[in-house]
Amino acid sequence: MHKRIIDILRHGQPDESVLIQGWVRTKRDLKRFAFIEVNDGSALASLQVVLNADFPEYESVLKQANTGASVEVTGKLVASQGKGQRIELQAQSVKVYGEADPEVYPLQKKRHSFEFLRTIGHLRSRTNSLGAVFRVRNACATAVHQFFQERGFLWVHTPIITRNDCEGAGELFTVTGFDLKDVPRTETQDVDFSQDFFGGKAYLTVSGQLEAEVMAMAFSNVYTFGPTFRAENSNTSRHLAEFWMIEPEMAFCDLQGNMDLAEAFLKHIFKYVLETCPEDMEFFNQRIDNSVIATAENIIHNQFERITYTEAITLLEKSNAQFEYPVKWGLDLQSEHERYLAEQLFKKPVIVSDYPVEIKAFYMRLNDDEKTVAAMDILAPKIGEIVGGSQREERLDVLERRIKAQGMNPADLWWYLDLRRYGTVPHAGFGLGFERLVQFMTGMGNIRDVIPFPRSPLSAEF
Amino acid sequence: MHKRIIDILRHGQPDESVLIQGWVRTKRDLKRFAFIEVNDGSALASLQVVLNADFPEYESVLKQANTGASVEVTGKLVASQGKGQRIELQAQSVKVYGEADPEVYPLQKKRHSFEFLRTIGHLRSRTNSLGAVFRVRNACATAVHQFFQERGFLWVHTPIITRNDCEGAGELFTVTGFDLKDVPRTETQDVDFSQDFFGGKAYLTVSGQLEAEVMAMAFSNVYTFGPTFRAENSNTSRHLAEFWMIEPEMAFCDLQGNMDLAEAFLKHIFKYVLETCPEDMEFFNQRIDNSVIATAENIIHNQFERITYTEAITLLEKSNAQFEYPVKWGLDLQSEHERYLAEQLFKKPVIVSDYPVEIKAFYMRLNDDEKTVAAMDILAPKIGEIVGGSQREERLDVLERRIKAQGMNPADLWWYLDLRRYGTVPHAGFGLGFERLVQFMTGMGNIRDVIPFPRSPLSAEF
Repeated sequence: MHKRIIDILRHGQPDESVLIQGWVRTKRDLKRFAFIEVNDGSALASLQVVLNADFPEYESVLKQANTGASVEVTGKLVASQGKGQRIELQAQSVKVYGEADPEVYPLQKKRHSFEFLRTIGHLRSRTNSLGAVFRVRNACATAVHQFFQERGFLWVHTPIITRNDCEGAGELFTVTGFDLKDVPRTETQDVDFSQDFFGGKAYLTVSGQLEAEVMAMAFSNVYTFGPTFRAENSNTSRHLAEFWMIEPEMAFCDLQGNMDLAEAFLKHIFKYVLETCPEDMEFFNQRIDNSVIATAENIIHNQFERITYTEAITLLEKSNAQFEYPVKWGLDLQSEHERYLAEQLFKKPVIVSDYPVEIKAFYMRLNDDEKTVAAMDILAPKIGEIVGGSQREERLDVLERRIKAQGMNPADLWWYLDLRRYGTVPHAGFGLGFERLVQFMTGMGNIRDVIPFPRSPLSAEF
Repeated sequence: MHKRIIDILRHGQPDESVLIQGWVRTKRDLKRFAFIEVNDGSALASLQVVLNADFPEYESVLKQANTGASVEVTGKLVASQGKGQRIELQAQSVKVYGEADPEVYPLQKKRHSFEFLRTIGHLRSRTNSLGAVFRVRNACATAVHQFFQERGFLWVHTPIITRNDCEGAGELFTVTGFDLKDVPRTETQDVDFSQDFFGGKAYLTVSGQLEAEVMAMAFSNVYTFGPTFRAENSNTSRHLAEFWMIEPEMAFCDLQGNMDLAEAFLKHIFKYVLETCPEDMEFFNQRIDNSVIATAENIIHNQFERITYTEAITLLEKSNAQFEYPVKWGLDLQSEHERYLAEQLFKKPVIVSDYPVEIKAFYMRLNDDEKTVAAMDILAPKIGEIVGGSQREERLDVLERRIKAQGMNPADLWWYLDLRRYGTVPHAGFGLGFERLVQFMTGMGNIRDVIPFPRSPLSAEF
């Protein structure tokens, strides 16, 4: 008899007896009867509960059922006479579990800025906008697992704490069991990390890719979906110190196969969310960014354009657009260039491949021209780079050369090199930041509003 | 035309043309023909590839296709004449991608100890046993998501880095952006954490429960599934410094509802794994622990016994068993007591509830007797405690009292208390360690062998 409000809104029939539990969003006392909007987080919309004036304890219930109060209502569903809803609940009993004093409860009916809502991160999920964000976030996550599991990929949990600092993907957080007041020293007054918990320096991971490669060499197809970290002091609307990343890795796969998978992946996620969260997506389209549904449709229905970096440079040079940053073979593409390609030129997602070796990581496979590597980025309208991937260097000698060229020591990566010593195969993978994906999907302007408890410089509240 | 080996083994038909890619497990040269066993990680079993003596490059292929080498084989499926397999692959072409020198490749055919395999964590997933473990681990994880998503729970990502140190669930790892060589000091020579990345002391989380409660107060039903940490110096076969935890949290739920969900949850996971990984589970039953299938069936088919802690103490006192640790009302149950109840007395899982307030956490709901709290642990045969949960204290005044009684400062938990100020509801949840579950499922003796890259004191390799 207990029903989730989303099920009632979608499938409830007049005369059905139901029990609902949730929180009051608003109430209106029209004296002859009253409306209480109850939300249980299962849907954007609330269920309208109707109290007739002859309802026992009409006055006392209405007094308690303020915005934010928790209630349990039993009654019968009836077709709604009012606008905006198909069905409503004629109350037979209302139990108020917990009140919310209107004098102090911060979430009154008026609209609040996202900045303000961040200061009440423990309550903000009770708003329409953040509620919609986290339902869509859950749908995205479910779609990720569904996509990979259907294709026989194993979800692998790569380590959060790592002693590898060699990927060079950004600044690292140190993890330590030391009391920082009293850090052990060696005779030469260096920090004596041999006495630390893990017997050496340890960090929070910036990527699970190298370990995912280990697993792909045993299971063929794997993916990670877990938290990663950057200690960069970037106080922007697109950076988090802690974020979730998805990194599939495929053995016996080249750059083309990698692109095919990434394109199918993005299409799947967008399609799944449009189908399972239509009300939330409609809300974002109306209230946050009126292009999000069009952007999603664009991704779902268009074959992604595929061009090389060299072609991209030529196209950018030929364009009449004014760019802030220079366009020149050998320089990385800036966000403005990426958006020009995806938004202005092709008006759909573009996969740019084969970037100059100098601007890409050591593990990316060197092309025969020795000037470029088998890397690929997917650039999407409105957001720029959404996916970055590559075919990995599977040749032991080339990989050792590339590691040395970057000033690293191959001995530190002995186990990674072993993958090329024993049964090496062409393999490839990509990564994407989960919060960027949710931001993209919802049109939310600040990445801190698409993760429940954002971590950023000077901020790790709740 | 490319097929996963598991699909061929299960559904392949004679005369089908296929292409497979994987790694050689063994080869046997019988001169008139040769067998190469190829494994791609999709299944425990390998596919037998047959090379006839008239195969072009018979000699050179056999020379290269040593254990560990990576190969691509095309050919036709044929019904197998030999024992042990239904179908095999008559090779038309074999491509060796990467060899594995038998003089140095560590994974030759003989059996290796799990201790040794831990030293080659980057290769051990290529063995039968670890391969089976990680397939079962993936199936468990998939079953977790499936169970909760089907019931409308949202997967919520609670923070990894946290400034809450107040749950007291064990020793904490510090996360810092400081260079440990040169930690900033205040005038009084204390560590000046205000200068650290997050503007204060930060730790790795020990539990996402408090934040999950935040989310349950907006979405009714949520669950976490993410990494958690303990800096305890426990070098045992049941402890990890980094492990994954699952923590559902339900609004409008009491202790009974919590037990019902936990029981349904465990049954679902075991059923799912038995159904989707029958070969792997059969392998564990034969090679690792001959009770794992019986234990799984026991969990699936029995209604869990439910007793109170007080009843449990009486039963233990009445028993004739010899216990190392004392049995007395007020003392926590030890592993030997838990196993006695589940294995000897009831011979099935037992849910023990209503523990003494002194031995349980501050957030557990105080019962009317004021001596016990609405906690529950599920004890399972062979492993002891597998799930721990409670109804949470939803009454503001009682919660404040409990916090103070534990010597903590309510002000530090202002946001957690706010959940009781605004629309508080009865709510409950439980937690279980994912690796313990996988260990339980597979019978693996050491928890380090059920996570790809274990972290423990003095060890964070790979």
